[in-house]
Amino acid sequence: MDLDDFQKIVEKKPLIHHITNDVTINDCANITLNWGGLPVMAPGFEEVDEMVELASALVLNIGTITSKQIKAMIKAGKKANKLNIPVILDPVGAGATKFRTEAVMEILKKVEITVLKGNIGEISVLAGKEGEVKGVEAIGEYKEIKESAKILAKKHNSIVTVSGKEDIVTDGNKLFLSKKGHPLMGEVVGTGCMLASTLGVFAASKKFLDKNIFDLIKSAVFYYGVSGEKAALHSSTPAKYKTEFLDSVYKISRGQLKL
Amino acid sequence: MDLDDFQKIVEKKPLIHHITNDVTINDCANITLNWGGLPVMAPGFEEVDEMVELASALVLNIGTITSKQIKAMIKAGKKANKLNIPVILDPVGAGATKFRTEAVMEILKKVEITVLKGNIGEISVLAGKEGEVKGVEAIGEYKEIKESAKILAKKHNSIVTVSGKEDIVTDGNKLFLSKKGHPLMGEVVGTGCMLASTLGVFAASKKFLDKNIFDLIKSAVFYYGVSGEKAALHSSTPAKYKTEFLDSVYKISRGQLKL
Amino acid sequence: MDLDDFQKIVEKKPLIHHITNDVTINDCANITLNWGGLPVMAPGFEEVDEMVELASALVLNIGTITSKQIKAMIKAGKKANKLNIPVILDPVGAGATKFRTEAVMEILKKVEITVLKGNIGEISVLAGKEGEVKGVEAIGEYKEIKESAKILAKKHNSIVTVSGKEDIVTDGNKLFLSKKGHPLMGEVVGTGCMLASTLGVFAASKKFLDKNIFDLIKSAVFYYGVSGEKAALHSSTPAKYKTEFLDSVYKISRGQLKL
Repeated sequence: MDLDDFQKIVEKKPLIHHITNDVTINDCANITLNWGGLPVMAPGFEEVDEMVELASALVLNIGTITSKQIKAMIKAGKKANKLNIPVILDPVGAGATKFRTEAVMEILKKVEITVLKGNIGEISVLAGKEGEVKGVEAIGEYKEIKESAKILAKKHNSIVTVSGKEDIVTDGNKLFLSKKGHPLMGEVVGTGCMLASTLGVFAASKKFLDKNIFDLIKSAVFYYGVSGEKAALHSSTPAKYKTEFLDSVYKISRGQLKL
Repeated sequence: MDLDDFQKIVEKKPLIHHITNDVTINDCANITLNWGGLPVMAPGFEEVDEMVELASALVLNIGTITSKQIKAMIKAGKKANKLNIPVILDPVGAGATKFRTEAVMEILKKVEITVLKGNIGEISVLAGKEGEVKGVEAIGEYKEIKESAKILAKKHNSIVTVSGKEDIVTDGNKLFLSKKGHPLMGEVVGTGCMLASTLGVFAASKKFLDKNIFDLIKSAVFYYGVSGEKAALHSSTPAKYKTEFLDSVYKISRGQLKL
Repeated sequence: MDLDDFQKIVEKKPLIHHITNDVTINDCANITLNWGGLPVMAPGFEEVDEMVELASALVLNIGTITSKQIKAMIKAGKKANKLNIPVILDPVGAGATKFRTEAVMEILKKVEITVLKGNIGEISVLAGKEGEVKGVEAIGEYKEIKESAKILAKKHNSIVTVSGKEDIVTDGNKLFLSKKGHPLMGEVVGTGCMLASTLGVFAASKKFLDKNIFDLIKSAVFYYGVSGEKAALHSSTPAKYKTEFLDSVYKISRGQLKL
């Protein structure tokens, strides 16, 4: 990604449809806008598929999942698959409850996921390494998580990203690692969810940027981490950091930040 | 509006009931409080009408609309009409999907709307100029939008406001134009929704300020734009701008800002 | 509470499960994290009880209550009672509508509440002093509210906290008063809800701190007020104040603020 690419996103304003959680819905909308995308969060079962027709990417986040929402996600996801619109899945808390794990499994069975994004715990559980997860906390060795990510990517024919001290992007064969980011990202609610929105914007840009999806997702993870680093230059407490983080995204997107 | 008027709102603390979207619900509550109103956002079908009885204005926003929410909005709106409480309708995304457009039409049929507030695209669609709207994006000539706003205002016996480079307020005959505001307002999620809450507070003040509703809505649109301008004096990136914007509203309301 | 206690919370990261309102859900999650807790907000009836099994406290907030949510709260509350996990109830707007008052009564009947937290109006209504409340606004003499709080605490075998110019904590016999806090807390949406989350974190720490629950709740109310005071040293308008407030909590928790 160079400045021209970022500018093209701002010009094209790809519509990113979200079916997401109530906790970070505002943050997800704002970061989509900060990258130059246009956020829409339409949860109504009655219109999810019609809204997908207008969108350039679909982001599904199960943070505050209910049975009803699972149905809306599957309806929207199927429509996206039909129209070849990339689908991002954020399996928040998979492994924490049986209901969540099964919800993710059902979505993965019925919808082709372009990018599956999780933390170490979620990705481990979904790769079948249940023993290493306790509640919503992630436990496990780093080497294994790379293997888990690869296995999962191959199994679902998806790109898998894992957030952690070292971020992982893999399609099952290729493996990209990034050590960008900052510990304060873990002190703010929503930095995981906002990454999913970021992946949505970058995946959507496939339509008008001459890049393949794997490289776009690599760039998304990388520049998201860079935003996290830049924000820490101006703040050292969570609430101020969040403001700086969102503004760093905007500044990178608009070429106002020396990288 | 002079400082005495603003102070009276702060003293009277009119209760503004919202049935609104999940994305900007917190912003709407905060800006209501910043203007001196008291926000209540009670979505439960079981109590929406009882809550209206306590309120001085009702704000309906279809941003994350569902069938169930439409029913609650109509129930609340009918009660407000009966009690002569002003109703503000923000038809977010009307024209984007059939479901949204029909939802707005149904509400407009069953509830008398005091102020109908939208962007250029939404107002155009509702005025029957469907050809000029693409998805949730607004396209169209400026001259036509004034006509559309007037037609719509006459048809529904409402005041119509349109947000854009030039803000419009019309009751079908009178036309007020305002060039206040700032481009950064478009870089923050929720500035449209927060205007609807602002209209709610100003409309509610009809009960205790010696002003007619058209003048109050004009003032709301004008001072909202002024807040946008003032905020840009202290910030140039979206997240910081949002903070400054909310604080500008508070400072105008409390007479702390030279206008 | 001394610095060691705060550090233990950060180390132990107690999971605080919320079934809460849509308006301030993000604020509640962030403040939980700021105190060193781990927030989870899982509203799905299908999983609320399973999520409780992983939690160290349960926070129930009826701000945007629906019939469906009442059922989820009772299901989660019963499970928490069974597992001896503290339950915090924030009866937002009790007294404003019959539906809300009855919802709280039903929850109080079916779930043992560890801490019942409200403003003067809510606590008065729940203590049976209906005549002194008008809508969601609190009216009433200060002396009476202390008595009301004591009566309510005895009746439900709970600790009752009341937020106001003087904060109250009582178990029906003991009475703790705190004059910390700042008027700007009333100019920001969510400071009531965030106190409930704070009570959740402190109550959860009973598991690993050598303190009784009454002292922990006293500390929670006290340090919450201190955060409010500290924030006012750096800001005088609501939006900036909110940022400073959340960061003050973080700084107190991490020993970065001289108390």
